[in-house]
Amino acid sequence: MIHTKLTERFSLKHPIISAPMAFAATGKLASAVSDAGGLGLIGGGYGNLEWIKQQFSMVDPSQVGCGLITWKIEDNLGVLEEVLNLKPRAFFLSFGNPKVYAKQIKDSNIPLICQVQTLEDARNALACGADIIVAQGCEAGGHGEKRSTLTLVPEVADLIANQYPQVLLCAAGGIADGRGLAAALMLGADGVVIGSRFWASKEANVFPDMHNAAVASTGDNTIRTKVMDIVRHIDWPERYTARVLKNDFTDRWHNNLEQLIENSEVEAQKWQQAWEIGDPKKSNTFVGEAAGIINEICSVDTIIHNISNQAEKLLGRQWE
Amino acid sequence: MIHTKLTERFSLKHPIISAPMAFAATGKLASAVSDAGGLGLIGGGYGNLEWIKQQFSMVDPSQVGCGLITWKIEDNLGVLEEVLNLKPRAFFLSFGNPKVYAKQIKDSNIPLICQVQTLEDARNALACGADIIVAQGCEAGGHGEKRSTLTLVPEVADLIANQYPQVLLCAAGGIADGRGLAAALMLGADGVVIGSRFWASKEANVFPDMHNAAVASTGDNTIRTKVMDIVRHIDWPERYTARVLKNDFTDRWHNNLEQLIENSEVEAQKWQQAWEIGDPKKSNTFVGEAAGIINEICSVDTIIHNISNQAEKLLGRQWE
Repeated sequence: MIHTKLTERFSLKHPIISAPMAFAATGKLASAVSDAGGLGLIGGGYGNLEWIKQQFSMVDPSQVGCGLITWKIEDNLGVLEEVLNLKPRAFFLSFGNPKVYAKQIKDSNIPLICQVQTLEDARNALACGADIIVAQGCEAGGHGEKRSTLTLVPEVADLIANQYPQVLLCAAGGIADGRGLAAALMLGADGVVIGSRFWASKEANVFPDMHNAAVASTGDNTIRTKVMDIVRHIDWPERYTARVLKNDFTDRWHNNLEQLIENSEVEAQKWQQAWEIGDPKKSNTFVGEAAGIINEICSVDTIIHNISNQAEKLLGRQWE
Repeated sequence: MIHTKLTERFSLKHPIISAPMAFAATGKLASAVSDAGGLGLIGGGYGNLEWIKQQFSMVDPSQVGCGLITWKIEDNLGVLEEVLNLKPRAFFLSFGNPKVYAKQIKDSNIPLICQVQTLEDARNALACGADIIVAQGCEAGGHGEKRSTLTLVPEVADLIANQYPQVLLCAAGGIADGRGLAAALMLGADGVVIGSRFWASKEANVFPDMHNAAVASTGDNTIRTKVMDIVRHIDWPERYTARVLKNDFTDRWHNNLEQLIENSEVEAQKWQQAWEIGDPKKSNTFVGEAAGIINEICSVDTIIHNISNQAEKLLGRQWE
């Protein structure tokens, strides 16, 4: 068993948190992660309160946390309070400035996890009172930014060690097996936030054809792009893109965004129809570069067992 | 001491290779790395034979290797043979298809190190007979591509384990301290290729103002771009960009490449003048995201001592 400040703080068996992936991270997925000894998070995403409540009705909120997309909260101001009333195990904010919301969350005595994409973000989140910083690299599936996990984690670790030694640090982006977990611990993280590997689980809310496309893909075949946000009419701030599998849709439009905007009505309809039936050719499969080391769809329990076992062996290896 | 297949194969004290950085990686730098127990490489870069010979005149070639930019070799066909005649300790090829050159190098009984940026590159380099694959992530300073070290290394490790178990693997991109070395070993690498940290050494051929700019920079302040290749009139293949510190020059032109091409005569002259005096504001400082964890210019000996010590401590840590 790998003992870290994260396992201690949350009484976990494994220093593993599941990413609150919009749509995919259901109550079923989050509770399976917590049951297996990690910390599961429900993907509150864009703040659909009805959906969030439905997911929480299936779990023990003392064991499961919730995430929201920070910049989107202001469009659904009631959601934050409603979710806090559910008393989740932790609150996870990513993509935007947590400043306005941090006090309310901390006043509720719910641990505040802030995912950041740059050192500057980390400085801000720490000043806002984050209890845990998640340093997310561009390897990650779904939304993110440009910096890489391998350099962002140690740089944030130094900042925390120097100025906020009580704050914990997790690594996110590109971690899908025991090698990634062990590497993250070497970089100075207290644990990891894993997205793609749990997305590729039996418990995730993902269409089989998208699962199959990700399993068949190498890590070379993903791209960070804005095409899906244009056709979904979601006003993501300029700095964020989302990593998905390359396909005909990204090939056609990634370098023709202005043309896509001009054609967005027609393209949006085609995309939406494909998304609703989980067609990986005509809509987008949200998965990270780690697709290249994900070779089958497993149960959450098997995934956590394999990751922790592999990491334990690597960490115990003799190098002399 | 960290013992790996790399230290064994090359009789090294430390599983550390210095990147053959064009211009910066002189004979002085490379021999300092080898003297300190790593494997130093001279940056043959674009193939300036006179410069390469000058660097080799200062070293023991049985201890020091040489790198060349693969796609550029065809413009200087004699260089490959001339460098092979110097009997370097190893030959390092990056950026392009090694197929045409691999046989000549291997026939000279010189170990062939192929740096790759994608899984597809790795497949090709292995088929060409590479003895060592270097999986380089986008974190790296200077030229490179889009994939990240954290996912590329384990994916290539799996390929090697399954099909070419005699081949060694090194990680490159974003590794600048013992945390990075330890993480790379966890990911399945047998060693690391380090660029930026050696670039930021007393032995490197780098102007003081550029050193100072990198030390002052966080990891947020770098960018992958083509601006410097446009003004230098170097025809890098489309897929490669170079990571440098952001400055007024990248701010002005990075998103206006067509305009830069139109103005390239004037801009080239300004850039070249600034480059010749090492002005980090008007030309480009080639350093990776690891700039954020590089806080002083040290001697090579100190750098290798610190990296290996820190990695040894991390690898020996108890996690239970």
